[in-house]
Amino acid sequence: MTRTAPPALSDLLSPRSIAIVGASDDPARPGHETLKALATMGYPGAVYPINPKYPELLGRPCFPSLDAVPGPVDLVVIAVPAAAVPGVMEQAARRQVRLAVVMSGGFRETGETGAALQDTVVEIARAAGIRVIGPNCLGFANIPDRVCAAFGSISRVPRLAAGTVSLVTQSGGFGYSLALACAEEGIGFRYVIATGNEADLGCVDLIDALLDDPGTEIVMTYLEGLPDARALMQVGRKALALGKPLLAWKGGVTDVGARAAATHTGSIVGRADVYRALFRQAGIVELHEMSDAPDLVKAFQCHARYPGMGSGRRAAVIGGSGGSAIVFCDAASQAGLALSEFQPETVDRVAALLPPIGSPTNPVDLTAGYIGIRGPKAYADVIRAVLDDPGVDTLCLNFASSSPAGTVAGAKFLVDMAADLRKPVFVFSSMHKALAVEAHAMLREIRLPVLPSPVRVAKAMGALARWAAAREALAGARLAGGTPAAAPSLLLQAEGRALDEVSSKALLRSIGVRTPGEALVPVDALADAPGIARGIDGPYAVKIVSADIPHKSDIGGVRLSVPAGAPLQAAIEGVVAACRERAPAARLQGVLVSEMVTDGFELLVGVLDEPAVGPVIVLGQGGVFAEAMGDSTCRVAPIDAAEARAMVDELRCAPILRGARGLPALDIDAVVEVLVDVSAFAWAHRGVLAELDINPLFVRPTGRGVVAADALVVTHAPAPASH
Amino acid sequence: MTRTAPPALSDLLSPRSIAIVGASDDPARPGHETLKALATMGYPGAVYPINPKYPELLGRPCFPSLDAVPGPVDLVVIAVPAAAVPGVMEQAARRQVRLAVVMSGGFRETGETGAALQDTVVEIARAAGIRVIGPNCLGFANIPDRVCAAFGSISRVPRLAAGTVSLVTQSGGFGYSLALACAEEGIGFRYVIATGNEADLGCVDLIDALLDDPGTEIVMTYLEGLPDARALMQVGRKALALGKPLLAWKGGVTDVGARAAATHTGSIVGRADVYRALFRQAGIVELHEMSDAPDLVKAFQCHARYPGMGSGRRAAVIGGSGGSAIVFCDAASQAGLALSEFQPETVDRVAALLPPIGSPTNPVDLTAGYIGIRGPKAYADVIRAVLDDPGVDTLCLNFASSSPAGTVAGAKFLVDMAADLRKPVFVFSSMHKALAVEAHAMLREIRLPVLPSPVRVAKAMGALARWAAAREALAGARLAGGTPAAAPSLLLQAEGRALDEVSSKALLRSIGVRTPGEALVPVDALADAPGIARGIDGPYAVKIVSADIPHKSDIGGVRLSVPAGAPLQAAIEGVVAACRERAPAARLQGVLVSEMVTDGFELLVGVLDEPAVGPVIVLGQGGVFAEAMGDSTCRVAPIDAAEARAMVDELRCAPILRGARGLPALDIDAVVEVLVDVSAFAWAHRGVLAELDINPLFVRPTGRGVVAADALVVTHAPAPASH
Repeated sequence: MTRTAPPALSDLLSPRSIAIVGASDDPARPGHETLKALATMGYPGAVYPINPKYPELLGRPCFPSLDAVPGPVDLVVIAVPAAAVPGVMEQAARRQVRLAVVMSGGFRETGETGAALQDTVVEIARAAGIRVIGPNCLGFANIPDRVCAAFGSISRVPRLAAGTVSLVTQSGGFGYSLALACAEEGIGFRYVIATGNEADLGCVDLIDALLDDPGTEIVMTYLEGLPDARALMQVGRKALALGKPLLAWKGGVTDVGARAAATHTGSIVGRADVYRALFRQAGIVELHEMSDAPDLVKAFQCHARYPGMGSGRRAAVIGGSGGSAIVFCDAASQAGLALSEFQPETVDRVAALLPPIGSPTNPVDLTAGYIGIRGPKAYADVIRAVLDDPGVDTLCLNFASSSPAGTVAGAKFLVDMAADLRKPVFVFSSMHKALAVEAHAMLREIRLPVLPSPVRVAKAMGALARWAAAREALAGARLAGGTPAAAPSLLLQAEGRALDEVSSKALLRSIGVRTPGEALVPVDALADAPGIARGIDGPYAVKIVSADIPHKSDIGGVRLSVPAGAPLQAAIEGVVAACRERAPAARLQGVLVSEMVTDGFELLVGVLDEPAVGPVIVLGQGGVFAEAMGDSTCRVAPIDAAEARAMVDELRCAPILRGARGLPALDIDAVVEVLVDVSAFAWAHRGVLAELDINPLFVRPTGRGVVAADALVVTHAPAPASH
Repeated sequence: MTRTAPPALSDLLSPRSIAIVGASDDPARPGHETLKALATMGYPGAVYPINPKYPELLGRPCFPSLDAVPGPVDLVVIAVPAAAVPGVMEQAARRQVRLAVVMSGGFRETGETGAALQDTVVEIARAAGIRVIGPNCLGFANIPDRVCAAFGSISRVPRLAAGTVSLVTQSGGFGYSLALACAEEGIGFRYVIATGNEADLGCVDLIDALLDDPGTEIVMTYLEGLPDARALMQVGRKALALGKPLLAWKGGVTDVGARAAATHTGSIVGRADVYRALFRQAGIVELHEMSDAPDLVKAFQCHARYPGMGSGRRAAVIGGSGGSAIVFCDAASQAGLALSEFQPETVDRVAALLPPIGSPTNPVDLTAGYIGIRGPKAYADVIRAVLDDPGVDTLCLNFASSSPAGTVAGAKFLVDMAADLRKPVFVFSSMHKALAVEAHAMLREIRLPVLPSPVRVAKAMGALARWAAAREALAGARLAGGTPAAAPSLLLQAEGRALDEVSSKALLRSIGVRTPGEALVPVDALADAPGIARGIDGPYAVKIVSADIPHKSDIGGVRLSVPAGAPLQAAIEGVVAACRERAPAARLQGVLVSEMVTDGFELLVGVLDEPAVGPVIVLGQGGVFAEAMGDSTCRVAPIDAAEARAMVDELRCAPILRGARGLPALDIDAVVEVLVDVSAFAWAHRGVLAELDINPLFVRPTGRGVVAADALVVTHAPAPASH
């Protein structure tokens, strides 16, 4: 999908005048809610309610139609039944409207008739240069400019405060919950947009545009359907390059039932795995819980002000309670953080400030009541000593058992230190919110996150560190582009079916992947096997070749470690007999006689064509029991060697590959090469290649390479000819 | 550790009179905080401040010593320097005090001198029949009876409301944060106890006693150190049998560095794994996050009122927003819930109540604004139809995008339905708390949990279902008891070292575990190998035997698949030579010549003696790369066959054992037998057996049993003779 340049949002979303078609005096109607919200928010522009039933509404003159409005109209909000929307859009076209928000439902979400109506509306809008949000959407609000072109939760109390976070959501109801969770923590917003059916402006377009908006520092999004996940990757990378965090929640990642996949690859990798990889590759920060939204916004706002941590993961914790520090350490380890080991000078500086029963190493235990006894200066000095340590990237301060007065005192030291702070400091406070309003407001002012649990502190720190590391690693990286290559004839001939092993391996050899020495004994020439297999060293693997039998070992189509001579002949005839008996309908091409490969560790390299994402490359422990190993990782293809190496490092079996338990190191370079080549092949033939399995890929000791002992390629059915 | 019967808490913790030794007019002193809290809480009994410096304190007469107090004293709070505590305890003994809360620090936590002082204090108390909380603790509060024998956070605002949850915590600071998190959600408490050094009353004693307290319905605990985790299991089972949920947070589960273990078993299983297994076996509900505390209390209070779900995991969700239902489904799947599949009658009933674009199947989509359009009765009818479905165990109602008025309206329907409700109903509401006070209070009154995220609803439902299932499965189960058995001489002779493979296997055979045919060729009789190995079928496994070489394959001490004759002799001499070269200090007993076992799937069965827990039985995928498989599970030993079978089912490789990919089903019964027997052996010889590894344990097809191809037993060093 080719996307056009993002629209300039400040033009579209800051209208000087708004017409509401379908304005109403019924408080339950969307048109009423919008009109009312514009009044309560204090929108300063012109507002034109449109409804022939009323001479005026909520104290404003009401007009019978858009045509009757006296002044220019930048934005039209449409809240009339679906059938009337094309007519309204035509009026809008005549009035040179720039943006239409179509709240009305009854379009694509209802079936074919609705879809046709939606197409009609968009055609009229496109011809007139009108951009459209919706239909079937809650609309949008521009908080700093007091614009509300929305109904439902977006138009109601509580009013959001103005700020620098923008939200784009495919679910008005749930997505706006994320904004409310942030608002409860005092976080302000710039734009909030619910996209509905996305007939014109989609989530990705809007994220793209928000990244260009100078007033937006953080973009948050809730996504369900996504016709083009690569476009999301692209805006993710753009966000990373700009240093504007993109926080995303992907709903609908649970695989309902198993995939109907022919390959191991297809059953190993779930949709959640693919999206986790995609987000990671694009530097998108994944949200997993409502509280992640405010926590991560606070973390990133803190990082924007105190960026000194670089991409470091080394955390320190200072507590007056041993318990909260222990819990932080448990959680930090789970969040992928490391606990800083203080330099000796740091330990000495801290020890000099503590009572003898305190702990001057990380986690620092000040002992209960420390501030009361030693005073605020000593407390600030401990914090300074810890932050001065070059091995500390970020600090968690535990206010677990402070009194309200103690919490305020603690906040005051931090405010005094703020000018000198260079690294992010997070505060864990279990104080009742109502009793800590003052302290929390002081800390919010200097952008230090206050979170109600050490576990949430650790999670937010972990997300921050991963983002910062991704920014260092990925900034400037470009996504693969280009048009798909012409598919090799083998792929095209498959016409939407599985290729047999011989053809699958031929394709692999064509991109440089080594396969064992082997020969095909045609099914009508079984007696000639000795001659055909001459030159191939025994013992042998003997396998039926049939595009109709993807899982050949399941039905007796494979014999391994077969010696030369009579046993070979018997095995060849045996697999044919077994397949004739157990898969009578299968067309048998012949029997493949291969060198028996046994030396090496079994991996799986695969490709899966994930809807909306395209080719995904998979690496895992292989063999007959690949699924049971549960040791796999994936990336959106294509990938470079560094990314391939990162995949190897993520496997649980990586220590084996590096040489464990007295065994030699294996040829990881050769694995990396296969991953890069296969991923490039999958990308070049996207849309044609459906699945690919190399299983097992035997990895031999360093320098001795890899061998694809078995392979299976599945193609997509060709697109039906147009009629 | 043998524990005595739990103390009757209502006697100890509901004193008619309280003396505070070390009362003070300095607001920063613990003695002041306690005195003040008693006044503000309105404690109705007699209060005696003790301090020779003051004639009166906070309006009460102050006494120079305990001896000078005119009336009887039930409880003494001690807040004087450590050195003065024995003297105070002696006075308390004379006054027939029943309970002493020693807040003072300076005891065991400071080193040997402090530990001796602590022992002195406890001796005095024990002799006089005084129970002790502390020393070095925040103390306790009895909320309904307005008793506060505490300082710090427990004595301060906010005051907890009275209720039926009791908290015992080893960390006053962090543990009390859990109470505050609950209080913020309107949850009331009965007792809150911080145990400090636990010189007399420990966490487990107190939990035990709280389970006997009629006023306590739920017990919550934060634990760090635990001298006897089996005692915790015991109170866990008691809690389960009584139907009083025990919610526990274990701090300090992160393994710092790898275990110094000789076996695979030791490196596969971490402390967090052991505690997860222990909690699960005892029906203890694990807390992982601060918000789990209020969420799970609400869930259990709901379940106490609407217990109709049994132990079911089948959840339904009704939403006005597609997004929140999708997010619930994603989270439910992760939380181990199943989505109910409605019966056709249910679908028909719901469909008749919905607009055509709604969804009458699970997740039910009411469509936006449903209540406004169809009215409250229709909404209640949808809920009834769903709850009437016998395939629905629990229901999540999403109020994601409701207005404050809509939320109140929704709450009202539920209140009207409460008398008929049989199954737990959870409400997800993203409404600002301040705007939903009325609705939330109504729902709290009828015990329906209102949680601020669908993910938290799913987690709480999952915990509830697991607890209910554990209650059905485990209620009445008894923990293993008895004294350790006399250890076999082989174990005793090892004297704290590893046994060689020959001895290790002999021990296994003694408990009925099959090992391969094999013979030991002594190192000084290598030339006699052909005669010694006669009767053992080749090919052979040839392995060095030395208690000094636990990982023999790492140094060339193993040759596999060795044919008979000259190759066998060469292999025997080869492994001796390799070990002489690479482990010159090792004492070599000889060379073990075994039948080569290759037919079967490789498992690992092991035992680990976890500090405070005792023997833990481990099952995992085995082989040289057992660690890299990362497929293991554990239980506190001993276990019965049902628990052993559950372990098998938890492995990722379970499908292989059951017969996958056209291969025969393997002998799971034989695996179960080994697990039960080894766990009984480990329990019988607890304190002697340190580690045990059977790796690989070859599992053959059903009926053909298992073979322990290699084994390693490690014993503890004998206890030093008393001096």
